[in-house]
Amino acid sequence: MTTSREVQLAARPQGEPQHSDFNVVNIELAAPGQGQIQVRNLFLTVDPYMRGRMNDVKSYVPPFALGETMTGGAVGVVTHSEDARVPVGAHVLHDQGWRTHANIDAGRVKVLPELDGVPLSAYLGVLGMPGLTAYAGLLRTAEFKPGDVVFVSGAAGAVGSAVGQIARLKGASRVIGSAGSAEKVAHLTGNLGFDAAFNYKDGPVGEQLRAAAPDGIDVYFDNVGGEHLEAAISAMHSMGRIAICGMISQYNSTEPTPGPRNMVQIIGKQLTVRGFLVTPHYDLFDTFAQEVGGWIASGQMKFDETVVEGIDRTPEAFMGLLKGQNTGKMIVKL
Amino acid sequence: MTTSREVQLAARPQGEPQHSDFNVVNIELAAPGQGQIQVRNLFLTVDPYMRGRMNDVKSYVPPFALGETMTGGAVGVVTHSEDARVPVGAHVLHDQGWRTHANIDAGRVKVLPELDGVPLSAYLGVLGMPGLTAYAGLLRTAEFKPGDVVFVSGAAGAVGSAVGQIARLKGASRVIGSAGSAEKVAHLTGNLGFDAAFNYKDGPVGEQLRAAAPDGIDVYFDNVGGEHLEAAISAMHSMGRIAICGMISQYNSTEPTPGPRNMVQIIGKQLTVRGFLVTPHYDLFDTFAQEVGGWIASGQMKFDETVVEGIDRTPEAFMGLLKGQNTGKMIVKL
Repeated sequence: MTTSREVQLAARPQGEPQHSDFNVVNIELAAPGQGQIQVRNLFLTVDPYMRGRMNDVKSYVPPFALGETMTGGAVGVVTHSEDARVPVGAHVLHDQGWRTHANIDAGRVKVLPELDGVPLSAYLGVLGMPGLTAYAGLLRTAEFKPGDVVFVSGAAGAVGSAVGQIARLKGASRVIGSAGSAEKVAHLTGNLGFDAAFNYKDGPVGEQLRAAAPDGIDVYFDNVGGEHLEAAISAMHSMGRIAICGMISQYNSTEPTPGPRNMVQIIGKQLTVRGFLVTPHYDLFDTFAQEVGGWIASGQMKFDETVVEGIDRTPEAFMGLLKGQNTGKMIVKL
Repeated sequence: MTTSREVQLAARPQGEPQHSDFNVVNIELAAPGQGQIQVRNLFLTVDPYMRGRMNDVKSYVPPFALGETMTGGAVGVVTHSEDARVPVGAHVLHDQGWRTHANIDAGRVKVLPELDGVPLSAYLGVLGMPGLTAYAGLLRTAEFKPGDVVFVSGAAGAVGSAVGQIARLKGASRVIGSAGSAEKVAHLTGNLGFDAAFNYKDGPVGEQLRAAAPDGIDVYFDNVGGEHLEAAISAMHSMGRIAICGMISQYNSTEPTPGPRNMVQIIGKQLTVRGFLVTPHYDLFDTFAQEVGGWIASGQMKFDETVVEGIDRTPEAFMGLLKGQNTGKMIVKL
């Protein structure tokens, strides 16, 4: 028997989550069954989307169950294997996070390549779900083409910072980002290679975007919604494309928020506005991991992590994420 | 010399157009030059989009010029030809409307096939620009597939009535339309084969759409915008598609109108919202004309016309169109 220490959802948070919304407990794990492996987790991820799943509302993913261990992305090492496809010692990416150990069907894990210069934690961020979200959303949903002018909101986040850098490395003619502090704006242009960036708190987004992209934009990658989306529609070239990944400006609204006032421009400009989830795009994973992994290994693409240590501090890491206490990807190291 | 009687734009209308906004004049036409043909027009079209072009504002098409003859779709017979590709006697579709005669570069006209059971005026409606708008918007922009549940607003109009019938003939599992009177609603279900229809003036569009499509919709063809678009987003299945052709509910707004309050659903449902113009889709014309022409000839597809006679009554026909005095396509017969 193996003891797994696990974080369970004890109560549905009202507003900001509290320590009392979680229980941290020891669970005795049997040996893995036929076709299963046992994994010792090395890194866990906490992500903003998890907050939505803590509410008891129907959405595109079901809510987390009370009294059960939280799930989420994790990277671990295989300690037992009852499936020839996944050997002991392999590093795997899986979705049984918020625990130290797990038995998992071998078919549900992704064996990770061992790449020089690529830390394993990167598979939870720039080389994991957030990175694939950026890659698929930009290249497939927004149908990015070399020469495009690209605007991304929430550009200092795990997804946004990948979007801007992938666009640059794929031949964008200009990459513009918005973020919520002067430090983040300086980081985008100073370290991540954005051509222009602005702090959306400094003034109307429309005016700041026009100044940053005086000749207009071809692609908008939306993480924010609201005023950002309206500004992007107005700045769009004919045949422009908008990939909507998130609308974080609206997640805490208690009333329905009106949409952009310039929707009619979608007709004359022949725009495509497309919402997407990462789930249907995992067929791109190998191509994505090879290409972005190469850029990470060579230093052409950068990423930031904020690391919290210890399974018992996972709720704390999650609460800090929601308060913006992280720079780049928030990671729990076990 | 040939005398052409022509309608010119004399003044930019303030609100509803008046007779005094137009002059009807005689113009002497020389013989057509090399590579040109001379056409005697048989039918002219008046369309809602022309109202926008009478304003002096930049849009996706330039405004009509004051003191010049109005242009627009027309069907005529070739009376002189200086180009071997277009013989005398051929019937042609062209864009030099609002006049009795015109010299035109032969490369700019479409020679019309002579199909049994298809009146020439149909090439200005169900077999012309409005019909191609319906065909391309449904099949290409909205990526219609057999089995889809399709909702179209403005369903009794020239475009909307074609959308609903094409969807039915292409294998939609259910076709729903909205219109603005009880007579139009009865016409949609009684004569045009719609499975359900409602009068949007009878109550909230969202409630009426839910009643007409209790299991949701896959495609929305938008001619109206506003409340209709919001209702459609809420009714959409995952991976649904919205083709935005027009937003007539907003054309007379003096203030910018807020967009749908449920834009965030575009993400979770992975919706595609795409604005389109008919212009880039003329490559579909021959396929469209053959398929829809066949349905017209066989009586499987129906269309309505309101015919006004005489070039001098073209302004009257146009003013009547804007007041909704037409059933189906408004046509001027010369």
